[in-house]
Amino acid sequence: MPAGSKRSQSTTGKQTRPKLPPVDEKTRNLIVGLADGVVSAAAKRRDPHLDIPTRSLSNVRFNKAKRIIEMGSQKNCRQLFNLSQAKSYMQTLLVASGCKQLIEQQKTTSIRGLYYLLKHTIEGTREETFATQDECDPMIEDLEVTLESLREELHVYASNRGGMVGPIVLEDSGDEIDCARMGSGGYSIPSIVEADVIKFKKCDASFILHVEKDTVWRRFNEDKFWRKHGCLLTHGGGQPPRGVRRLLNRLHHELKLPVYCLLDNDPWGYYIYSVLKQGSMNLAYESKRMAIPEAKFLGLRSIDYERCNLSPSVQIALSDSDVKRAKQIAAYPWFVNKKGWQKEISQMLSNGFKLEVEALISKDISYVTETYAPERLADNDWLD
Amino acid sequence: MPAGSKRSQSTTGKQTRPKLPPVDEKTRNLIVGLADGVVSAAAKRRDPHLDIPTRSLSNVRFNKAKRIIEMGSQKNCRQLFNLSQAKSYMQTLLVASGCKQLIEQQKTTSIRGLYYLLKHTIEGTREETFATQDECDPMIEDLEVTLESLREELHVYASNRGGMVGPIVLEDSGDEIDCARMGSGGYSIPSIVEADVIKFKKCDASFILHVEKDTVWRRFNEDKFWRKHGCLLTHGGGQPPRGVRRLLNRLHHELKLPVYCLLDNDPWGYYIYSVLKQGSMNLAYESKRMAIPEAKFLGLRSIDYERCNLSPSVQIALSDSDVKRAKQIAAYPWFVNKKGWQKEISQMLSNGFKLEVEALISKDISYVTETYAPERLADNDWLD
Repeated sequence: MPAGSKRSQSTTGKQTRPKLPPVDEKTRNLIVGLADGVVSAAAKRRDPHLDIPTRSLSNVRFNKAKRIIEMGSQKNCRQLFNLSQAKSYMQTLLVASGCKQLIEQQKTTSIRGLYYLLKHTIEGTREETFATQDECDPMIEDLEVTLESLREELHVYASNRGGMVGPIVLEDSGDEIDCARMGSGGYSIPSIVEADVIKFKKCDASFILHVEKDTVWRRFNEDKFWRKHGCLLTHGGGQPPRGVRRLLNRLHHELKLPVYCLLDNDPWGYYIYSVLKQGSMNLAYESKRMAIPEAKFLGLRSIDYERCNLSPSVQIALSDSDVKRAKQIAAYPWFVNKKGWQKEISQMLSNGFKLEVEALISKDISYVTETYAPERLADNDWLD
Repeated sequence: MPAGSKRSQSTTGKQTRPKLPPVDEKTRNLIVGLADGVVSAAAKRRDPHLDIPTRSLSNVRFNKAKRIIEMGSQKNCRQLFNLSQAKSYMQTLLVASGCKQLIEQQKTTSIRGLYYLLKHTIEGTREETFATQDECDPMIEDLEVTLESLREELHVYASNRGGMVGPIVLEDSGDEIDCARMGSGGYSIPSIVEADVIKFKKCDASFILHVEKDTVWRRFNEDKFWRKHGCLLTHGGGQPPRGVRRLLNRLHHELKLPVYCLLDNDPWGYYIYSVLKQGSMNLAYESKRMAIPEAKFLGLRSIDYERCNLSPSVQIALSDSDVKRAKQIAAYPWFVNKKGWQKEISQMLSNGFKLEVEALISKDISYVTETYAPERLADNDWLD
């Protein structure tokens, strides 16, 4: 018998169930509710099934009022007594039971860890619960949308990337963290940043500057930009992981801090901004807790090549896929009616090259922190 | 005229030169010495040249007494008045002048940043100083070996990856950091960890457990392993970056902390151990400040599949390149005479599969922290 199911049985008994934090109690009850639905269907001699919101582009739409990408209302019925659905039905419930176990044990794991936790040969068969992790990961996302719970609330975390520095004091897992005194590496933003783990104790910042890369972040940190300008300085190590997006969302909404993004002048930079602002298409169900529709794009802009009088040496020619990607992004519903963005993208296409934020180093190593960002902020000069 | 050279001229004047920290003063003087050699050769009407230690496998050897990989004494002469060497000669001096500028400005940058700092069209020509970053990076390594200075001492940093938690108090850039109170993400290990940046203030740990991945690290941190066992807990996000290796080296040598490594049971895990222990072949010149010949390999071992009674579900079949890689590693001079390692590697080959540390989750989510690691440590059961 697999260890996983043994442990979950022993912890479901009412006597032994520990008192959980309220957030976890709620998520656990959602999972139990899901299972109860199956049981009650069986008791009524109906086919057990799950209604899983459809996670596909056809079920994604841009909500113009809220300015975020949302999931539509399409659902797929996943039945036990249907040969083509039985396996994924059972896998979904297995993932649900694994998450319930994690919550009750008050432990967390990675998506890889959850896969190992649940992977076993089904007793009396040669069938594996999951052949590979690729079969397990989508079940986690299915469960997230079905329960309307973030992965982090299911005690499964993504990568631990991204950093923050600035005048804010947090409580993280009981430790008081003064992000102004974290040394050269800054505060390492964890994957799980929900209110039961991270509490905001004191904040003297008046905005957030989010930069794409840790190398750029380091320049800003070394030059104590955050001290001079009274801001928080964050980076996401490229495309920001969920923890960083969720923390920015919480800082923006709970502490009313405006978010300014300093990203490369290339389609990837545009896309990072789009995801931070409106949410991502394949994880549309989490937009309402991740997206920041008010986020501003401070740069780099295509006009900066001329405006900052940059040397031709820093140009990086656009590839065919850059051009294709730029056109796709220009056609996004949330960019298509924005003059500024249309101009920005067509300027990049007519430039024929992209620019990294690091290109500003060719002016001066601290040009970006002492001239570029302060001027844009002082002039309210950004794209929205 | 490029901004870079303008700035370095204005800061070489003796009046304006600021007082530098002793480490930086030393590195700066090495660079100035290099330039002085060129000047004095020219004054004597000799061809200006640089003697650059050869960074190739042919010039790498395993020092059995010190148990580290070292560079040999081969050098290449790089001359200005030699058509095939003139460009790289000038590039080397350009990189040296860029590093001198960084040191004098008391700023640091990434290898990408240094490339942008130095890239320009040479006046009156259409020639670029560097066509791509690939032309600049080797010059940084050449300069490192020539000056016997680590990249970090040249104020150029690598990636900022890796974390640490445990009973140690550091001073990092003037901030006091208590690594026991850093929240769920731990202390983010910076790229530059030399003694002028990171000072060890107080340490109550008796050893270091280094794990491969942040996901495994998180399990150990969540289970407060470091508190129960009085150790520091580090990870390098896979192959540890230079900052992590250098910090482990300093902790090991300055605080006399033994280092135990918990890595995957695959050729990649073996290789990470080999680099931590003996140094890497392509960066052999830094072994003496990076390698930890006393480091132990705690696991995962090929015998663990049977010893821990793992399920067949967790096996990952060896690929052809895994097999090839494993055989190469078995033939490394520092493994070839070690019975334990020969047995370990041949057992993996005869198993026909590899194992990730996460595979232990299939026993119990905390098996690795509550059973596996404590038992191995209690029994002094590791490979050397």
